[in-house]
Amino acid sequence: MAGETGTTRMETFSDGIFGIAATLLVLEFAVNEANGADLGSQLLHLWPSYLAYVTSFITIGIIWMNHHYCVETMARVDRTLLFLNVLLLLTIAFLPFPTKLVAEFLQKPGEQAAVYAYDATFIVMALLYNVWWRYARIGRRLIENEVPDSRLRAIDRAFNPGIFIYAACFVVAIISPLASVVLTLVTAAFYLPSAALFERRR
Amino acid sequence: MAGETGTTRMETFSDGIFGIAATLLVLEFAVNEANGADLGSQLLHLWPSYLAYVTSFITIGIIWMNHHYCVETMARVDRTLLFLNVLLLLTIAFLPFPTKLVAEFLQKPGEQAAVYAYDATFIVMALLYNVWWRYARIGRRLIENEVPDSRLRAIDRAFNPGIFIYAACFVVAIISPLASVVLTLVTAAFYLPSAALFERRR
Amino acid sequence: MAGETGTTRMETFSDGIFGIAATLLVLEFAVNEANGADLGSQLLHLWPSYLAYVTSFITIGIIWMNHHYCVETMARVDRTLLFLNVLLLLTIAFLPFPTKLVAEFLQKPGEQAAVYAYDATFIVMALLYNVWWRYARIGRRLIENEVPDSRLRAIDRAFNPGIFIYAACFVVAIISPLASVVLTLVTAAFYLPSAALFERRR
Amino acid sequence: MAGETGTTRMETFSDGIFGIAATLLVLEFAVNEANGADLGSQLLHLWPSYLAYVTSFITIGIIWMNHHYCVETMARVDRTLLFLNVLLLLTIAFLPFPTKLVAEFLQKPGEQAAVYAYDATFIVMALLYNVWWRYARIGRRLIENEVPDSRLRAIDRAFNPGIFIYAACFVVAIISPLASVVLTLVTAAFYLPSAALFERRR
Repeated sequence: MAGETGTTRMETFSDGIFGIAATLLVLEFAVNEANGADLGSQLLHLWPSYLAYVTSFITIGIIWMNHHYCVETMARVDRTLLFLNVLLLLTIAFLPFPTKLVAEFLQKPGEQAAVYAYDATFIVMALLYNVWWRYARIGRRLIENEVPDSRLRAIDRAFNPGIFIYAACFVVAIISPLASVVLTLVTAAFYLPSAALFERRR
Repeated sequence: MAGETGTTRMETFSDGIFGIAATLLVLEFAVNEANGADLGSQLLHLWPSYLAYVTSFITIGIIWMNHHYCVETMARVDRTLLFLNVLLLLTIAFLPFPTKLVAEFLQKPGEQAAVYAYDATFIVMALLYNVWWRYARIGRRLIENEVPDSRLRAIDRAFNPGIFIYAACFVVAIISPLASVVLTLVTAAFYLPSAALFERRR
Repeated sequence: MAGETGTTRMETFSDGIFGIAATLLVLEFAVNEANGADLGSQLLHLWPSYLAYVTSFITIGIIWMNHHYCVETMARVDRTLLFLNVLLLLTIAFLPFPTKLVAEFLQKPGEQAAVYAYDATFIVMALLYNVWWRYARIGRRLIENEVPDSRLRAIDRAFNPGIFIYAACFVVAIISPLASVVLTLVTAAFYLPSAALFERRR
Repeated sequence: MAGETGTTRMETFSDGIFGIAATLLVLEFAVNEANGADLGSQLLHLWPSYLAYVTSFITIGIIWMNHHYCVETMARVDRTLLFLNVLLLLTIAFLPFPTKLVAEFLQKPGEQAAVYAYDATFIVMALLYNVWWRYARIGRRLIENEVPDSRLRAIDRAFNPGIFIYAACFVVAIISPLASVVLTLVTAAFYLPSAALFERRR
């Protein structure tokens, strides 16, 4: 025990934040109540909201799966890891706000600032995710004995590109905010095959 | 392990999304604060909100029970199933928005578009549910050895009508949006006796 | 198994709804942003909001504890109990709306209708709670073998007054809505000593 | 059993409230939709919102970790502890409201009242936390036999300053509301090294 405990409660708390943050995304959707006759076309014109919703939801889902996969390699947690976990969750719980910005401002004045804020959030998230993982992994500090080094290296390989990809999304937003959001969605879908890849290699 | 893990954490995350999506439904209710003297009749005129709330809540509850029942047959999950699960949850977490549309626009201009959006969400949900289940079930890919084939077939039988029922709700909305919502509520109640049926047959 | 399963996942889902419904109560609080100089006195004049928040939160907390205590006596759940549980949770998840009505309208025009809606919600909740418990308890349908009858009777004794108390709150609201809310708060506090009582008797 | 039960479900419910309260904090963020061209500078001027968000989120995270650490020393819970836990959670679930006040009013008229409300919430929270812990700890009422007294004393030492620190924050707000919020943030960061300290001593 002694300040180092099982991973269960960190998982429960994290699952909660992941789940709630993902579900709060829906609150971004809004239509003009006064104009019901127009509702059909209003719903079609909400496509930036759908795009932002799907992108953020899938990203949270993938990060949750990777978080799950990483925690599985850990034998225990300590207070520093829990604190880093709180910082990581802080970023994930923040995501509904920039998502709402993208939903509201994409294809309108202010779209650049909205997508910068969106991408910056993902960069910080990827950064904290890396710090969180590396803290547990370096010197196998919190890793279970039976977990082979090859599995840890596979996780490293999968995470290394993360920050660069989101930085690239940020750069793309200078030219086209819409393309940047689409790239973020593609990124969420990219993590999966990549992960499948490193599983096969093991 | 090797990327295939127990079903517990998928259940925790799913229960979270189911529970939060169901609870966020309450945010659709709104009254005009400026007109307190009128509050009693305002509350009575909110009946489309009550109808939409009860329909969506019970539907989420039933889907949650069926999800639970399906996961019980599984020995493990893999990344593809987790990803399909994320897509399914994305649809369920989206439900508070079309529910709010129905609550606000039923019996007013725009009701048709609102109910189309509502029914379309259920169609997508039923579709993803089927894909999710079939992925786990085909060739008993993720099914526990002790689970008899008859139990799997019973689940198939219970799920097959789902998409068609929701498509029928959609068609009914062309004639009467209100009847369509009532049919959706009846559908949520129908799943139960049907489920009871296949249990007795086993 | 056969459609009857352990109580764990019903507890997880219920805990989720209880927790989220309780936490969403905070969204009732609102101040006028335009009038910051006045904020101190605005916060004092929010006392109906504080009263409604504390009353609803403690009630949810107590119901959650009683729910917990009842589930502990159960060996398993079946689909009917799960469905009744969904209906019970539907009422609990609805609570933030009448709570907000009380917060907004107490001591203003419309307070009577607001408190009627509040008390009616509690009456329905108490009713569903009784049905849920009696379904599991009659003929010891879902009760664990080791649980003595005296314990079940003690739970009965504790629940029997519930509906009558909330009906009394409703009647009191005809004369004084404020007194009715205070009585509801006192009721939440009353369940505890009563529960302590039946524990000692066992 | 007999009204005293394992600590698991208290943890599940508490984790839920902690997680949801933390995630609801994001709802404080708001921008003026009508003024998109200005979005970049609007986002920069939101710094009081960021400060309030980070302060409250980290505080909730730390309290959650300490709660976790305390519950680990307990062998069981009784109804009184559960009730005190409900009161503690009531305060934590309330936090999004004063956080929003700080976010909206810091550096504007009304900032003093906003920060008083914020600090008062933390004082009540620290108070209830102490009562909750002391109830379990006095005479080792609910403590596991194997837990050494030194560990309990270490927790006492870590908690004793809590109320005084938050009272100090309150006093600082008389002179500078901004400094008070910064001090609250520093406090959240201070609990960690302190906790690390008592772990080393054990």
